[in-house]
Amino acid sequence: MAGDHCRHHPQVKILGSKASIFCMRVEWALKLKGVEYEYTEENLMNKSELLLKSNPVHKKVPVLLHGETAVSESLVILECIDETWSEEACPRLLPIEPYERAQARFWAKFLDEKVIFGTWDACKAEGEEKEKAIEVALKSLALVEEHIMGKKFFGGEQIGYLDLVAGWLPLWLGVMEEVGGMKLLHPGQFPSLHEWTRKFADVTVIKESLPPREEIVNHLSGGLRYLRSLAANKP
Amino acid sequence: MAGDHCRHHPQVKILGSKASIFCMRVEWALKLKGVEYEYTEENLMNKSELLLKSNPVHKKVPVLLHGETAVSESLVILECIDETWSEEACPRLLPIEPYERAQARFWAKFLDEKVIFGTWDACKAEGEEKEKAIEVALKSLALVEEHIMGKKFFGGEQIGYLDLVAGWLPLWLGVMEEVGGMKLLHPGQFPSLHEWTRKFADVTVIKESLPPREEIVNHLSGGLRYLRSLAANKP
Repeated sequence: MAGDHCRHHPQVKILGSKASIFCMRVEWALKLKGVEYEYTEENLMNKSELLLKSNPVHKKVPVLLHGETAVSESLVILECIDETWSEEACPRLLPIEPYERAQARFWAKFLDEKVIFGTWDACKAEGEEKEKAIEVALKSLALVEEHIMGKKFFGGEQIGYLDLVAGWLPLWLGVMEEVGGMKLLHPGQFPSLHEWTRKFADVTVIKESLPPREEIVNHLSGGLRYLRSLAANKP
Repeated sequence: MAGDHCRHHPQVKILGSKASIFCMRVEWALKLKGVEYEYTEENLMNKSELLLKSNPVHKKVPVLLHGETAVSESLVILECIDETWSEEACPRLLPIEPYERAQARFWAKFLDEKVIFGTWDACKAEGEEKEKAIEVALKSLALVEEHIMGKKFFGGEQIGYLDLVAGWLPLWLGVMEEVGGMKLLHPGQFPSLHEWTRKFADVTVIKESLPPREEIVNHLSGGLRYLRSLAANKP
């Protein structure tokens, strides 16, 4: 298996939450690199001392613990993993060439800021607002469709950084569609993205580690109920 | 001068706006690296064809044009500059060690997402909202104060990536305080940040290229008037 030479880092730990889009990508990165790690599920309603100490600024998962160091923010963690386990035998996550790296970072930011939050906005919106929010989300998805067109993976022939960042699309997006009562990723409208989700979900490391759909449904519908109850109780 | 060996890249162009926090940091990076570039001031009320073509997703400055390639998003551009002009003779912007790089990226994101926008929120808020917004901004600044404590520059002895990202503090923050009718960076409360702003603004490249204060006052007070007129006309 690719990455076998990079194993044996007993001090690598992840603090995460199984239903989190942002945690899953970090686990995938370590699995692709072949780095062994210890995973601790955080109870986000009652965060551990270790989480509060390791990410005192945001107090959020995921956190990568590596010996004495703690790294937060999933995109920052992905780059740190790529740079820490950079031996020849480890599959590379980011491209080599500076311009291609810049493109990958640009689209990662776009996916996180516009596509995930745009989709979530559409998911939670109601009434008139919902139509508008869906339109915004579709526009962002259309830009991603254009970007992946003609490519096997975002970075080329091999799965890499940007695939992991977009890795919530095959499973989480469908759940958001379900709990939000909407349809975004119409196969006819997004043929390339559709084809990519199929290829991505077929990569062994991904296939073997996608969380049960039910867990994500519970997580997202719980979040939605909570937000709506807050909104209903607003003065 | 450091970076002299990296000169002569006639195809490097910047599309920018002189009063923009996000554009200035890109120019500083090129100047520190000793890379010659052509600067084009964009009229943000009437954007050029070149800007619309170069950053079709966001249509925003800054854009770095380098031969046939175009890179957007200022933090992405800074990393691209660091990787493109990485010869021994060029001063390095990001640290070398993966964990230190991760820390720099983490704080850059925090500065851009929490500190700049927190300060801007406080600047534009009015009435009761203003006190709350000022409190939030002060909390974020306190975390930056803690992070810079005991250091000369954010990355150590030399000016680097995170200093450029925080580089709006010495001039733009004061202008926001002025146009927003508030005081945030009390020297007694933020002694280390205060000391850093002095050292940063004293670096030759920075000193020689800070835009006239009046330009920033006009830019930000214009922005504020515009936002308030929008809010006043809301149904």
